[in-house]
Amino acid sequence: MPVGTRATVKTLSPLELDEISAQIILGNTYHLYLRPGHELIKKAGGLHEFMSWEKPILTDSGGFQVMSLAGLRKITSEGVKFQSHLDGSYHFFTPEKVIAIQNAMGADIIMSFDECPPYPATKKYIANSLKTTLDWAKRGKEVHKNIKKQALFGIVQGGIYQDLREESARKLMEMDFPGYAIGGLAVGEPKEELLEITNFLNNILPQDKPRYLMGVGTPLDLLENIENGIDMFDCVMPTRNARKGTIFTKKGKMIIKSARYKEDFSPIDEDCDCYTCKNFSRAYIRHLFSVDEILGMRLATIHSLHFYLELVKNARLAILENRFEKYKKECLSRGWARMNTD
Amino acid sequence: MPVGTRATVKTLSPLELDEISAQIILGNTYHLYLRPGHELIKKAGGLHEFMSWEKPILTDSGGFQVMSLAGLRKITSEGVKFQSHLDGSYHFFTPEKVIAIQNAMGADIIMSFDECPPYPATKKYIANSLKTTLDWAKRGKEVHKNIKKQALFGIVQGGIYQDLREESARKLMEMDFPGYAIGGLAVGEPKEELLEITNFLNNILPQDKPRYLMGVGTPLDLLENIENGIDMFDCVMPTRNARKGTIFTKKGKMIIKSARYKEDFSPIDEDCDCYTCKNFSRAYIRHLFSVDEILGMRLATIHSLHFYLELVKNARLAILENRFEKYKKECLSRGWARMNTD
Repeated sequence: MPVGTRATVKTLSPLELDEISAQIILGNTYHLYLRPGHELIKKAGGLHEFMSWEKPILTDSGGFQVMSLAGLRKITSEGVKFQSHLDGSYHFFTPEKVIAIQNAMGADIIMSFDECPPYPATKKYIANSLKTTLDWAKRGKEVHKNIKKQALFGIVQGGIYQDLREESARKLMEMDFPGYAIGGLAVGEPKEELLEITNFLNNILPQDKPRYLMGVGTPLDLLENIENGIDMFDCVMPTRNARKGTIFTKKGKMIIKSARYKEDFSPIDEDCDCYTCKNFSRAYIRHLFSVDEILGMRLATIHSLHFYLELVKNARLAILENRFEKYKKECLSRGWARMNTD
Repeated sequence: MPVGTRATVKTLSPLELDEISAQIILGNTYHLYLRPGHELIKKAGGLHEFMSWEKPILTDSGGFQVMSLAGLRKITSEGVKFQSHLDGSYHFFTPEKVIAIQNAMGADIIMSFDECPPYPATKKYIANSLKTTLDWAKRGKEVHKNIKKQALFGIVQGGIYQDLREESARKLMEMDFPGYAIGGLAVGEPKEELLEITNFLNNILPQDKPRYLMGVGTPLDLLENIENGIDMFDCVMPTRNARKGTIFTKKGKMIIKSARYKEDFSPIDEDCDCYTCKNFSRAYIRHLFSVDEILGMRLATIHSLHFYLELVKNARLAILENRFEKYKKECLSRGWARMNTD
């Protein structure tokens, strides 16, 4: 899912997202609640209408963002009191309020409010936090009325502790959500810990419901977690890196500002059919970045998102044709697998 | 002509320019010479190929930019020595060099190197300057080899002095250029002076050659100068204003960040068929500007350029149907005519 924090996937138009075959995008509840506000979005006819995007949208719960406001928030069993990072104004998120906000915005998939604990944290802290998150999931589910149009996902927490992850998953499954997210990972823990958890949950979460690993990751992360049963991802990496001139290609990361591309009139990827590669050279895109022209960020973003979407599209195809292992191996033999370690 | 100073019309892709029916765009020789350099553009296959724009391009001569480098340039009859505004490096432009640069870039219309005198300036200064400019026009024309593919225009100078303007026009006409630009206006003189000069030159310049008024202007300026026989314009106003959130509309200037548009879910112009107006509301574009999202600048630029291009397209149609006076009157009765005086 390309990330469209503030009702826009940075630098792109909905038309361009459609052209790279984006199927679903993500919006951030915390940011949209602050600006322009969920009530305004509701008046506009919902988030789809507001931003002119007809395909599916997922909104997160704001849990991760609110927890990231170190020093500005206070968590109780009731909810989270926090100060806006914009103007310091005080706000209070409860699980009920977060559902009401997401109901107003009208995304197709919405998220339960969760506490996203830091890493590292003691098992005791994680266990306590998990209790709160489970209670919040229940409270949110009870007030969610718009069930036919908006699928509310539960979020599995539990840090790096398998027994807590299992408890979290089983209790959410008892509540019977239409999909399950895995939260609280990719927050600083070693990559092996993350993979252990997704591998472990692969045998617990129901096969017939989508699984969404939040905030992950590099192309290699995606492949390894698809192998562990993950169906959905979101990450700012392709878009954020692209805006800084670091582009994902089939041969590895391309730092487009590098002098080596100054007179390189080939496209970013030779056999890529995105708008960028069909029309523009590395030399031109490098020029645009050198002179700070916005079109450079746009062209880099189009290519990098297209790269990600092709990766998962082909992974899906490989799974359907029962050759995912081979697909992953082929991918790993290519230069871009190294992008993970840079 | 939308202005694409550095081989990109700011924030837009060539596809978007094509969609708003841009027929020709302008590139700036001074900027492109410094970055990425005309030799690199030549290696790329020319400016069209480099920026992926198949339709016509006009490049200016760099005269105006070089003259604007107050304190950094020294004018002699041979040419202009100047320092780059980027790194202070020294460069020397002669009329021959400026043609060579423009030959390398390969625009469809190229400009003679001229001295663009400041306003106000004494008649003696202007007369001397004019001598230099006429000599440069001759020298440039002599070295211009690529006549079949690139039309070299002469630039009429002479400040606000009709006799000098006439002398300039007649001497250039003796050299027989395929088109004539009017330079040295819109540099601070009263608007009446500008209109007097274009009206005066209307009876002197040949009817069957295009006339290009450089660096003009507001929508009203365009109409008034079309009436004075001008065929071509360039101005950064629609694009620069749009990026700052000031949008041209049929009812006047729209400061999109204004609180009055916060919950205004109508398009910028009700009966406009540009991508922006067909898909997005004032409230959404205002939101994008409020949170500094690039898509806001893009959508505003698309609309404002479309507005300008519709204005001149309809002016042309009115001329062909012999009803320009009526068209201009209709335009003036509308709110946007006031945009000129803001």
